[in-house]
Amino acid sequence: MIDLRSDTLTKPTESMRAAMARAEVGDDVYGEDPTVLDLEEHVAGLLGHEAALFTPTGSMANVLAVRALVEPGQEVLCEASAHIARAELGAHGAISGVTMRTWLHPRGQLDLDVVEHMLAPDMGPFFVRTAAVSVENTHNFAGGTVLPMSDLRDLRELADGAGIAVHVDGARLWNAHVATGTPLAEYGAVADTMAVCLSKGLGAPVGSLMVGSADAIAEARVRRKRMGGGMRQVGILAAAGRHALDHHMDRLADDHEHAALLAEACGVDPAGVDTNIVVVPHDDASGFVARATEAGVRVSAVGPRTVRLVTHLGVDRAAAEKAAAVLAGL
Amino acid sequence: MIDLRSDTLTKPTESMRAAMARAEVGDDVYGEDPTVLDLEEHVAGLLGHEAALFTPTGSMANVLAVRALVEPGQEVLCEASAHIARAELGAHGAISGVTMRTWLHPRGQLDLDVVEHMLAPDMGPFFVRTAAVSVENTHNFAGGTVLPMSDLRDLRELADGAGIAVHVDGARLWNAHVATGTPLAEYGAVADTMAVCLSKGLGAPVGSLMVGSADAIAEARVRRKRMGGGMRQVGILAAAGRHALDHHMDRLADDHEHAALLAEACGVDPAGVDTNIVVVPHDDASGFVARATEAGVRVSAVGPRTVRLVTHLGVDRAAAEKAAAVLAGL
Amino acid sequence: MIDLRSDTLTKPTESMRAAMARAEVGDDVYGEDPTVLDLEEHVAGLLGHEAALFTPTGSMANVLAVRALVEPGQEVLCEASAHIARAELGAHGAISGVTMRTWLHPRGQLDLDVVEHMLAPDMGPFFVRTAAVSVENTHNFAGGTVLPMSDLRDLRELADGAGIAVHVDGARLWNAHVATGTPLAEYGAVADTMAVCLSKGLGAPVGSLMVGSADAIAEARVRRKRMGGGMRQVGILAAAGRHALDHHMDRLADDHEHAALLAEACGVDPAGVDTNIVVVPHDDASGFVARATEAGVRVSAVGPRTVRLVTHLGVDRAAAEKAAAVLAGL
Amino acid sequence: MIDLRSDTLTKPTESMRAAMARAEVGDDVYGEDPTVLDLEEHVAGLLGHEAALFTPTGSMANVLAVRALVEPGQEVLCEASAHIARAELGAHGAISGVTMRTWLHPRGQLDLDVVEHMLAPDMGPFFVRTAAVSVENTHNFAGGTVLPMSDLRDLRELADGAGIAVHVDGARLWNAHVATGTPLAEYGAVADTMAVCLSKGLGAPVGSLMVGSADAIAEARVRRKRMGGGMRQVGILAAAGRHALDHHMDRLADDHEHAALLAEACGVDPAGVDTNIVVVPHDDASGFVARATEAGVRVSAVGPRTVRLVTHLGVDRAAAEKAAAVLAGL
Repeated sequence: MIDLRSDTLTKPTESMRAAMARAEVGDDVYGEDPTVLDLEEHVAGLLGHEAALFTPTGSMANVLAVRALVEPGQEVLCEASAHIARAELGAHGAISGVTMRTWLHPRGQLDLDVVEHMLAPDMGPFFVRTAAVSVENTHNFAGGTVLPMSDLRDLRELADGAGIAVHVDGARLWNAHVATGTPLAEYGAVADTMAVCLSKGLGAPVGSLMVGSADAIAEARVRRKRMGGGMRQVGILAAAGRHALDHHMDRLADDHEHAALLAEACGVDPAGVDTNIVVVPHDDASGFVARATEAGVRVSAVGPRTVRLVTHLGVDRAAAEKAAAVLAGL
Repeated sequence: MIDLRSDTLTKPTESMRAAMARAEVGDDVYGEDPTVLDLEEHVAGLLGHEAALFTPTGSMANVLAVRALVEPGQEVLCEASAHIARAELGAHGAISGVTMRTWLHPRGQLDLDVVEHMLAPDMGPFFVRTAAVSVENTHNFAGGTVLPMSDLRDLRELADGAGIAVHVDGARLWNAHVATGTPLAEYGAVADTMAVCLSKGLGAPVGSLMVGSADAIAEARVRRKRMGGGMRQVGILAAAGRHALDHHMDRLADDHEHAALLAEACGVDPAGVDTNIVVVPHDDASGFVARATEAGVRVSAVGPRTVRLVTHLGVDRAAAEKAAAVLAGL
Repeated sequence: MIDLRSDTLTKPTESMRAAMARAEVGDDVYGEDPTVLDLEEHVAGLLGHEAALFTPTGSMANVLAVRALVEPGQEVLCEASAHIARAELGAHGAISGVTMRTWLHPRGQLDLDVVEHMLAPDMGPFFVRTAAVSVENTHNFAGGTVLPMSDLRDLRELADGAGIAVHVDGARLWNAHVATGTPLAEYGAVADTMAVCLSKGLGAPVGSLMVGSADAIAEARVRRKRMGGGMRQVGILAAAGRHALDHHMDRLADDHEHAALLAEACGVDPAGVDTNIVVVPHDDASGFVARATEAGVRVSAVGPRTVRLVTHLGVDRAAAEKAAAVLAGL
Repeated sequence: MIDLRSDTLTKPTESMRAAMARAEVGDDVYGEDPTVLDLEEHVAGLLGHEAALFTPTGSMANVLAVRALVEPGQEVLCEASAHIARAELGAHGAISGVTMRTWLHPRGQLDLDVVEHMLAPDMGPFFVRTAAVSVENTHNFAGGTVLPMSDLRDLRELADGAGIAVHVDGARLWNAHVATGTPLAEYGAVADTMAVCLSKGLGAPVGSLMVGSADAIAEARVRRKRMGGGMRQVGILAAAGRHALDHHMDRLADDHEHAALLAEACGVDPAGVDTNIVVVPHDDASGFVARATEAGVRVSAVGPRTVRLVTHLGVDRAAAEKAAAVLAGL
């Protein structure tokens, strides 16, 4: 069975397991786990930020990061199919008390004129204040699309002018980085806070990080505990994350090639496939999923007429080619 | 000074004051205020719903109504400049834990294709469930625009097909009714819950109602108390509301005429002014507000380049003509 | 029927109705209702505080006041049968995200040793911080009991030493003031915030005030709007409140006398009845309530073995005597 | 340095690391991690419940479990120094909207008369409903005290009579089980939900479980994701937990012996030390902590006049004796 449902499905490699098995650990709630501290410093450095915080999931990293920028009763703007809007179970409202408005873009991109029109940073005490704009790069439900650096820079400028903050949901920022060659720190420079994930294409079993200023991270550390994310000897997992960063970054390019190959097989223009996710329009998404599964390829329906394929560490060239052949024949 | 900042500014008339002064009252938390009970039954009847609940404000009516339809962690969809999104201080997220996504329409209208595209009533336990769509009729920040009955019926059909609910923020539904002649019960028929307001164009000093099924109202009654809205001998206010409904409905047509007159004076096409609100684009909204005030006409800036004029009970024909002359000369 | 269920049941007198009918009003959301502004200034002055805020209910005043002192995730300490703990439907947790711990006292009093033992203002970032202690004076469910001024002063000292705040739920502070002769400003001096109510013994139909520093009130004004408490021409109600303060304060002494009379009739030691509430232990509270009602006296069960009688503006000497006779005979 | 600050400080043993290194894993959000599924089934079985859910922390397990029993606006009763009240950063209020009242007991025990007095399961729609009582066994801040089985059974009976639920915070239930010989399933039988922890005395690096009915667990699985606790190939951690359950349970008896030894050294009656925690009253807790640290023994201050010592997997007989000698000499 070739599993293309998600890049969250990757299993740790042997060398990653070895790294975990020998990881030095301590109690991270006391701030005493050296492997976690090292990972946090390393990731903050990669992105050019002051500090980082290890979290059990990307959802928690996003919730903490948005909350660091947006008070209860204020709003964050994002694209209507953003992960923070669709796939975090309403945590930003239900847990943080933050409100949200959205713009729609078929490829999950920024529409700067619309964003500018929506901004309301300063309409007096009786209006919701726009406190942040969040962008997702790459954008999961839009099909792994990359946000152009020029748009991100324009957003930064717009935000600075309006006195509001920018969050980057970079669960798959590594894919954008590898696909475009844009340095990670350049992506970091447009953001007040970021969330990055180790357990998607990079292949670590568990773990994400929130990245931001030292103050934002200190506050988030307290809120992480309130949310039940203050784990103990979690260096075991951080070791896997560090191993993934050190050894699995460059190979994301393979995933992107495999995705293009799958796109072509499914009649999707590969020019529109920026990274490792292929969104396939299909009249009967769940029927397609069932037939693919029967034929040995697992894929997922992310809408009644939308199938999604995701390539990752667990799918090598041969598997990708085999899956392409299977899907082409459905 | 002619005050066009809002139709919330109306003051009770002498006969309304007399109605308040003689109102029979009781403790409404115990369900014993006859004037409140009468008003609730009357308004539910007007809109063809089972029950209604008196609330201190339209905001509370909206928060209770949306919460009746949407659980914490679920979402309500609405237009991006809806009152529930912009002007209720994020209560739907901060108090109800409800999340929101929005579509944009320059005139606050439904865009049914977009709404259909956004609906996600049933994507499994790990996605936000769309539980309701909310529409505002008339739409305040879009300029008192009326939503066509045909769109509302299409929305009802779409919602029924998807198994989701419809809320109508009808703070100024009376204006839509008077402007179009559509019976109130016809508006009521497309909604699971509604909020209507007595203290805007109708001229009551305080008070709104949530309208819906008996079950929804019973739940809302408890939540109203939690929100601090369980008032005691509030029949005093309900009497004003009933008086307003009985005596000030038809005269809303005058407000609409006055608004058209003001629109023309400000260079706005009166064909686009459906009811009592005129949105005037202006390069320097706050400058315009200042100059108008100096000249004896108060108006408000609802955006850096947007001035809003609202006609109401406190502005008669002569005042409207005088204001038009003043604004035309600025 | 003589109604002793609650002092919230009072109906406005003729002269109070007249005061309402002639009240000058404006839009209080814009801060333009002169009668409200006057009442807020008057009450702040009575209690020696900087500012006050009119609210639709005592519950909202308490929620706003506690929230002004306690951040989400912090705690307020109070007695276990306090109104904020029992009768505000969990709003402090559900709306404010504030947590609570309680001490138990059969007469709702402060137990300063216990309070001191419970205080945890500064145990580091991973413990709940005690941000405030709340006391209720008079204490409703404990039977209208008065908190001695000496205890309140000791609490103030303890709180100052620990760097925490004090809230006084003074829904019936007027009764404490009249019963003891302690000046209102002396009560005010021990509190950072207070809530006082106009619609209980004082006899206004609706309305309470939160009292505190100018900063706390400014913040609360925004939160009041979020909670749906930003009413418009509410001077109508404020006029009743001012009338009640000016004309119905001294007569609370009558209510206290009547309560003593009722206590005696029910076999309760009047020495333990400080003000206008009598708590009567009874093996079958609901049976007693039913028999009393049948005999023309409405009372309430506030526990399976606890009956409560409350005297108020609507119960004169003759009615109190008649009720005493009825209850004595049950 | 001998570290007695907490039993959360334990580091995985070599054989535990080996178990982690060879653990079979899958994506637990998809319900496909066999090691997690096995652990959940095993722990549910041990405690005689239908189902269990792995969580990153004991805090999250408690928050999910209490929320499964208590709706927003309802209350849970617990002892005033319970972990859920003091050490979960107010999550039950801030995240779940649940409210809390507390009773005080110097040894963290149930006081059934008081609990019965506090219960308010059914006082009508305008009162907070008591939905659950939570007990902590062993009780951390009271000094690892065990709750007698007879009290737990009485509580169960009281709760059943009142129609309310019981949660057992069993972070250290293993210690109670080992200290008393009471079978785990007997503890399980008094609870509707439980939380148990693998990363305290048992020595796993990370992980707790919520235990309850299949329905409660299914709901909690969704809420776990909302809280950011839906981890992926987390079988790595579950393998450590299973190893700990299989190999480190019996040795908790050693920790208890070591605690008694330390108690004696510090002048605390060992008869009051039920398990692995010693609470030492001291006039200057932070001074004591500093001197102990200097002398090579880390302990913690859990109050201005309270020192806490905790024994665990990382402290063998020799270390305990050395620590006892050091502390006796301070």
